[in-house]
This record gives sequence, C-alpha cells and structure tokens, in this order.
Amino acid sequence: MPDKSTLEVCVTPGLLPLYPIDDKVVVVIDVLRATTTMCVALDQGADKVIPVDTIEECLSFTGKENYILAGERNGRKVEGFHFGNSPFEFMDGVVKGKTLVLTTTNGTRAIKMAEHSYQVVIGGFLNFTALTKWIVAEGRDTLLLCSGWRNKFNLEDTVFAGAIIHHIKEYFLVDSDSAFAAEKLYLNSRRNMLHFMKQSSHYRRLAHLGVVNDIKYCLRPDLTSIVPVLKNGALVIANSTKHPRN
Amino acid sequence: MPDKSTLEVCVTPGLLPLYPIDDKVVVVIDVLRATTTMCVALDQGADKVIPVDTIEECLSFTGKENYILAGERNGRKVEGFHFGNSPFEFMDGVVKGKTLVLTTTNGTRAIKMAEHSYQVVIGGFLNFTALTKWIVAEGRDTLLLCSGWRNKFNLEDTVFAGAIIHHIKEYFLVDSDSAFAAEKLYLNSRRNMLHFMKQSSHYRRLAHLGVVNDIKYCLRPDLTSIVPVLKNGALVIANSTKHPRN
Repeated sequence: MPDKSTLEVCVTPGLLPLYPIDDKVVVVIDVLRATTTMCVALDQGADKVIPVDTIEECLSFTGKENYILAGERNGRKVEGFHFGNSPFEFMDGVVKGKTLVLTTTNGTRAIKMAEHSYQVVIGGFLNFTALTKWIVAEGRDTLLLCSGWRNKFNLEDTVFAGAIIHHIKEYFLVDSDSAFAAEKLYLNSRRNMLHFMKQSSHYRRLAHLGVVNDIKYCLRPDLTSIVPVLKNGALVIANSTKHPRN
Repeated sequence: MPDKSTLEVCVTPGLLPLYPIDDKVVVVIDVLRATTTMCVALDQGADKVIPVDTIEECLSFTGKENYILAGERNGRKVEGFHFGNSPFEFMDGVVKGKTLVLTTTNGTRAIKMAEHSYQVVIGGFLNFTALTKWIVAEGRDTLLLCSGWRNKFNLEDTVFAGAIIHHIKEYFLVDSDSAFAAEKLYLNSRRNMLHFMKQSSHYRRLAHLGVVNDIKYCLRPDLTSIVPVLKNGALVIANSTKHPRN
C-alpha cells in the first residue's frame, strides 16, 4: 500500500516560504470574504475570476468588454471599481458570461503567492463538501493556506482549515501542530460558528463596515458544489468529468 | 484612566518582523525545553545564561574559566559541549556560580531576534505565576513570542502563551486572533496537559529521543519564583526589589 499523501496547514502567507509547494495542491482559504465571493461569482455564471495583486493591475483592465473590476482594501470597495468584495454583489446575473478581475487585501495575494504550486484550488464553507471531495479525489500532498490578515494569523481561515482537517484526515497523513490546533479550534467552534467568529478581529472589522450579513452568508455550508481551480492565472470551475457535481 | 497596555501573541519567530517591539516587553517562550532549562540553571545558582545563535559561537567560549557550554540541535546534545538542553542536567549544583552558554534549535534564536526590544523576559510553566506577576507589574505593551519549530507554528509554546493570556488578560487590551486562539487551545488542554501535548510534533520528537521525563518536568507549574530577564546579552534573575520573590 502506498504511503498516504500529506495534509498540512500554513497559518499565514507569511510562513509560505517554509513549505515546498511545487508538487502540492494548495487550498487557498479566505473565508471572509474573498474565496467565498469567488465561488459565488463562478457559481453565478462568471466565465472566470482573475485574481490580481494590486489596484493598478486591476484598473489596467478598465474598459475591456465583459470585464468587471472588483475588490477591496481594508474591507472597503476601491474607488473606480464596479464592485467591492461582498458575495451579494455578484448575484442576480451581473457576472454571467463575464470575467471578474478581483483584488483583495489578503486572499488574492495568497493565491498569487501559491501560483507556482502543482494546483491552486479555493473555497469556503459554501462549497465545503465539494471542495473536500475534490481534495480527497486528487489525493496529492496538500497544503491548506490560510490567507490571514496582513500576514498575521487569523481565526476564520484557521477554523476553516480545521474543518477540512477534521473531515478528511483519515485519507491523509496529518502530522503538524498547526493542523492539530486548527482542528481543535474548529471543534471548539462548530456548534456555534457565528458566535465563535465574533471573537475574530476581522468580524469586528467587517461588522464596523456594516456587512454582518456578508459574514453570515460566508459561514453557510454547501450552497454550491463547484470547485474553483487556477488555470493560466484565472480561476475556473474544475473539470466536472473528474470531479462530478454531486 | 490611561489606556491599558496591549498583550499580543506572535505564534512563531518567522512572523516577528510584523510586530514592532522596540518599546515592548517580549516574553520568549520555548517551553520544551530551552526557556525551562534556562530558568532551572538560574534557579540553581548559575550567575547568568548567555544565549547564542550558533554552535561555533558557543564553542568560542571553550576553556574559559567557570563557563559551561551547552545546547542541542534537533533535540540532541551537540558534540564538544558539556551538556545538552535537559533541565535535569543543570541540577545538583553543577552550574552554581558558573556562566552557562547555551544554543538551541529555536529558543535561543528567538531570544536573539528579540534583543532590540525594551526588555526580553523568559519563562515556562515552572515559573508561571512569578512570570505573569512580573508582566502585570511591568504593565507595558507585551508580546508573547512563541519559539516554534524552525519558524513553524508549534503547539506547546502557543498553549503556554494561551495560559498567560487566560490568567492576566483582564489587565491588558487583548485584541488579536492569535491571542484568542492560544487561549482556546490552553483551555482545551489544561485539564490534561500531558495528554494534549502528546499531540505535538515536538513531544514525539523528544519521546523518540527518550526524554519523556524532561517533558513532564517542563509541564510542572510554579517550581520557582525567579524571572529571568536579558541584560547586556545575558539572562539574569530580575531585580528582586522590583519583583520580590513570592
């Protein structure tokens, strides 16, 4: 029987250089809100989502037909963009057939940092079951990369990483302190996730901006079965023949 | 009423550059085993403990009268040193009146990295109450710096940071996700600390080296009331008039 593949947790992009990822699947997690919003956009029919690092890079797509510019800095919509980073902004058909160009404080940056891995995949609670099935089916050494807050540890992404660990650890070799701690924090939180998340600094940051409904939405499980993967610099829905919708 | 000082947790030295520390107290934590062993050496009458980064630097003290060279790499004693990094090696009067020069994989490095802070202080479970009283009496902005494992997150130091948070948070402004998570992990562990620590990768590493008794010793609370602080590059017992032994 072959050895199991590894499943690890990197608690912030600031520590990513410690993890070799060239041959690994990297699951980028920015639950509040970037990777949730990206899933919504693709689920709502966007052709693709291009994550970019800077506001300038995003603005360079201005005026391009069928491109939508979106993003935030410190939680607030950037001036000159069509949309911010709220999942609700991308519903009601506004992104159907469009390409979304998105830049956020943490999530898009984490995706760019992991671009040289074997495969970047993203998700949140809204595609949790589909995402975990995809990771298990892939069966590769996998790193769960929490997007954090400006390279510091954050609670919500670590809890989400812990949820993944808890649900699929039997299929992998899980052997790191960060994975154990993340799972513990998930187990502490799962009976009342919203209450637990209220302790996070990003909850307070977003609540201050009046987007508590965004947070509630970001914590709702299994609203979609799509799994976004990075192909040629853009997030698209993973090949459904390999990972059929369930 | 003046604002409270801040109390934060940095989960690994790899993230220390994110925290301004020039005006802060930095509590360096390497519970298994460096900061525990340093407390033992000072409690047992060592004049001072000089933490050094490299084996070469440690060896440069060879032959100096009343100097003892000690340390480990990957948990094992370094060839040419008098002692390794087990707290038991520094009992029975061997360090009385001596200067201990110590280099370890993580702890001594973290101390050196924090040297430019307002004040470095160290500890472990064995001086927990004295250490927390000292931190409160000092009343400054304080960063709890976990030594981690080769810059990655580790469980035992985070749990210890969480114990500090839990016991003195009322005196400080505690507002970071890492502090909240550390406290949660401590609350998860405190009823059976040894069992919890068995999940840490460093427990397994040390158990493999046959030093489980070291680990048990390192988890015993309040064996001493000394508080080691860094003065001119060496750890010495903090001024007992300001922080009297209790």
